[in-house]
Amino acid sequence: MRIKITVSYDGTDFVGWQRQKNGYSVQQSIEEAIFSLTGETVSVTGSGRTDAGVHAEGQVAHFDTESSVPPEKFYLALNPFLPDSVKILSSERVKDTFHSVRCAKKKTYCYSFYFSSVPLPLKERYATRTDSVDVEKMRDALSLFIGKHDFKAFSSVGSSVKTSEREIYDAKLIEENGFLRLYITGNGFLYNMVRIIAGTVLAVGQGSKTKDDIINAFVDGERNYAGKTLPAKGLTLKSAEYIEEDWLFER
Amino acid sequence: MRIKITVSYDGTDFVGWQRQKNGYSVQQSIEEAIFSLTGETVSVTGSGRTDAGVHAEGQVAHFDTESSVPPEKFYLALNPFLPDSVKILSSERVKDTFHSVRCAKKKTYCYSFYFSSVPLPLKERYATRTDSVDVEKMRDALSLFIGKHDFKAFSSVGSSVKTSEREIYDAKLIEENGFLRLYITGNGFLYNMVRIIAGTVLAVGQGSKTKDDIINAFVDGERNYAGKTLPAKGLTLKSAEYIEEDWLFER
Repeated sequence: MRIKITVSYDGTDFVGWQRQKNGYSVQQSIEEAIFSLTGETVSVTGSGRTDAGVHAEGQVAHFDTESSVPPEKFYLALNPFLPDSVKILSSERVKDTFHSVRCAKKKTYCYSFYFSSVPLPLKERYATRTDSVDVEKMRDALSLFIGKHDFKAFSSVGSSVKTSEREIYDAKLIEENGFLRLYITGNGFLYNMVRIIAGTVLAVGQGSKTKDDIINAFVDGERNYAGKTLPAKGLTLKSAEYIEEDWLFER
Repeated sequence: MRIKITVSYDGTDFVGWQRQKNGYSVQQSIEEAIFSLTGETVSVTGSGRTDAGVHAEGQVAHFDTESSVPPEKFYLALNPFLPDSVKILSSERVKDTFHSVRCAKKKTYCYSFYFSSVPLPLKERYATRTDSVDVEKMRDALSLFIGKHDFKAFSSVGSSVKTSEREIYDAKLIEENGFLRLYITGNGFLYNMVRIIAGTVLAVGQGSKTKDDIINAFVDGERNYAGKTLPAKGLTLKSAEYIEEDWLFER
């Protein structure tokens, strides 16, 4: 039977979601926990491959098992076998047609900034430091990303995707408790896309880019119209959403 | 000349503020940075010894130096020699009579909780997990601590202080962004006092202690009327305050 899990992790010490030869990945940690619990060697598929250092509050993944552990209790049984930096928040049985990548309808990411002239040890782990910026200009620039666009200029080379068109449903900047958070929801994201959008919006707030650069980036697809790829540590995958009929198992 | 510094640190990987033979302390990291910058072997005195795992946003410390580095720029020059987990936020010259322990008038600590049935990797580092509690009962219990009391029951053995009377000026519980934060300001704190007060207030919220237990603890001084000593990771020293005339150097 197929199990859908929701996973949170602190990505600091991982090589990313995806299994790799050169280091410990989140996927490996979960596959090893499943092996410890059930003796099964399974492959766990995540809704997307978060990069080294990227965090997740609600990554979604699926795997197949023949274990007799009740699906809705699987997460409780797995957690003791996982490192402190990875925990499974929920588990449930889904239809065999469910696929965490193919059935994903929406994903939400958050990129976090904080303002300080000195690096703050209690904020550095999950946010990127910046000097003072014009938040209203950033908000204005961010609104340009909403809608259907060709995001070629806002992605790093190395991804082999058919099309670079994506749709952003919502994007907002929220100041909370000393952090400035950029939330963005879309039907999918290209390689490094959120980190580059965050870098572009930050550059507008700092005055080194303008709204015209963003418009030109959409038209020409030129990477250098966009801003820098910001550090992974500021990025958190908040959630991946699915249409209920795609996964809900008949009860 | 005497320099006063304000320091922030992530206490996770330290044996605490105070130099110790069995591990790396925050004090040692700063003394080594001063040695790297100036070649001087100095002793850095902190306003209080935070325990292993306790964090600080605004620890205050002082040291004496003959260096020619301008006092108000000392922090910028020292930061490159410090680990990522320790940064100095400001520095200034103070009168030779200033002493970070003896001249401290007030300190503020924050103890952070979060609510979840599963440990959350992105919250575990700086907060203690708990199941749902009665926040209003906690608020009510916390208010009992305000004022002058004998806090003997709310301290761990091992401290050699003359008196266990302390005054709490302010104490409040604030819900913010998925955390419940207990802020407490007083003229001084006994060994483990904030962690035990937090544990007692939490126990009231969970129903295992009552306001009467707190009143009895004040009257009898019995440690077992109070709650558990909560984990160090949830505790942050927010600030240490001084009367201006005690430290302000004539400019």
